[in-house]
Amino acid sequence: MSPVIYPRLAVIGCGLIGSSIIRAAREAGVVGQVVVADTSAIYREQIVALGFADHVTGDAAEAVADADLVVLAVPVMSMASAAAAAAPGLKPGATVTDVGSVKGHVAEALTEACPDNVFVIPGHPIAGTERSGPEAGFAELFENRWNILTPSDRDDAPYREAIQRLTTFWSALGAHVEEMDARHHDLVLAITSHLPHLIAYNIVGTAADLENVTEAEVMKYSAGGFRDFTRIAASDPTMWRDVFLTNKDAVLEVLARFSEDLQALSRAIRWGEGDKLFELFTRTREIRRGIVAMGQESAEPNFGRDRDKH
Amino acid sequence: MSPVIYPRLAVIGCGLIGSSIIRAAREAGVVGQVVVADTSAIYREQIVALGFADHVTGDAAEAVADADLVVLAVPVMSMASAAAAAAPGLKPGATVTDVGSVKGHVAEALTEACPDNVFVIPGHPIAGTERSGPEAGFAELFENRWNILTPSDRDDAPYREAIQRLTTFWSALGAHVEEMDARHHDLVLAITSHLPHLIAYNIVGTAADLENVTEAEVMKYSAGGFRDFTRIAASDPTMWRDVFLTNKDAVLEVLARFSEDLQALSRAIRWGEGDKLFELFTRTREIRRGIVAMGQESAEPNFGRDRDKH
Repeated sequence: MSPVIYPRLAVIGCGLIGSSIIRAAREAGVVGQVVVADTSAIYREQIVALGFADHVTGDAAEAVADADLVVLAVPVMSMASAAAAAAPGLKPGATVTDVGSVKGHVAEALTEACPDNVFVIPGHPIAGTERSGPEAGFAELFENRWNILTPSDRDDAPYREAIQRLTTFWSALGAHVEEMDARHHDLVLAITSHLPHLIAYNIVGTAADLENVTEAEVMKYSAGGFRDFTRIAASDPTMWRDVFLTNKDAVLEVLARFSEDLQALSRAIRWGEGDKLFELFTRTREIRRGIVAMGQESAEPNFGRDRDKH
Repeated sequence: MSPVIYPRLAVIGCGLIGSSIIRAAREAGVVGQVVVADTSAIYREQIVALGFADHVTGDAAEAVADADLVVLAVPVMSMASAAAAAAPGLKPGATVTDVGSVKGHVAEALTEACPDNVFVIPGHPIAGTERSGPEAGFAELFENRWNILTPSDRDDAPYREAIQRLTTFWSALGAHVEEMDARHHDLVLAITSHLPHLIAYNIVGTAADLENVTEAEVMKYSAGGFRDFTRIAASDPTMWRDVFLTNKDAVLEVLARFSEDLQALSRAIRWGEGDKLFELFTRTREIRRGIVAMGQESAEPNFGRDRDKH
């Protein structure tokens, strides 16, 4: 058990991520009181039943009163209104962070909505599952995952101290913390996360629309690679709509590159250019080896997901 | 232990799939003698060391002598030459099958290479991992996986009996066996397997080529969705080159549909059409639920791969 880092934690929006933060923070012993605000009455009922909050309310300003750390865990396009709703209740000196997958848009929204006497430190824990809602959360979600903080360019001592404290908090939850420029974050995530999701959504849609292959066949023989895409394409629709709309420029940029490369591959197939295919497929295999070597993934076969190839 | 179904099994090409068949057949007790032919001296050495074969040779005709079941487990474009090499040794009445991911091309190659007095029954076990070679195989690989047989249109009793026997064999290895027209197989697999692999290879290549995001960053933050693609894109380069070159028409057909849909998505993002995105993302989520409901995948979170979202 670590010592308490934030005596009072307020979580605004308590779905998969929000509820996981509370569970993890409780388990680590780094928070005292926990107050939750959620606009959904159904979620509020579930949160009360789950029993991990000291107080549950629909009113964000009420929730943040006297809170030392406020975590906004709503979809990206709801950040501005959630922050505006919470703002009147914020305690001077409180830290306000978030968990949104896009940081440029959110940083602007939070800075605009919050008074100057709080510390706004946007953040993005790269963790999640395709499940949604407070019941889907679990304490281990952030273990060995990255959390990217995108602080503003103010570098006064109190702000740096607030960043340090937030870093200690996330470390206690098992995460590795990194600081990054918001714009660069949005470009990196466009390729490592946003484009993969867009492509997964797209191929599942394409498959469903084919006339000569039934949906039942697609499901039945999905072990050949497609199944991985269906899992990704089951992620929360609201969250992902917001990501694509608020990180438009970076997503369209990497998407254009992807499409260009795909056209070249298509042409290589049409003209039977086996060498080009082989060269690419060998290169991508090396990249996987790099990830395995970084220890992010076991090289051993597992008898679940790793079998789903060919 | 089942009774022996084939007293003598010959496997031509003993990589991940070939070696898994031998291990699984041994464990199920459905074969007597096992003979392996492989053109790679390194693989032959490994196979001898693994100790699961009664005889290991570089000569396919020698390997198939007196064999009741011959399994060709080489890359798709090597099937014709492997079958031609084996043909002189084939015993009348033997069953010849394969494990290739493309069936139209292979069915033609095998029919042309083999004498009329053997039973050619092409097949495709939908199972595998991204690992290659005889040491990568394991006995459980086919458990609860589909094996699609694409028999020819001859329907004489001995041929039907040979199909029945091969079905019993694969069932003993834990697989579910289905019969399908070769051309339809190739279209179904183009969307459920070949296109997903092509896209995975492509996005990993695109990511590696970006100027403003380093390869180290891509690897580091791959948990956001990209990591699933790197695993798929680590699959055997020769095998997959052959798949795309021999299933060209079906792959280009589904690829064209995918690209068309992706253009529409790209346009929706550019013009901020959130409704269109939300509609697609909701639809694809339903498809995932269909797969989960079919019992092919657990709906419970697992603490490994399912976390790698967002």
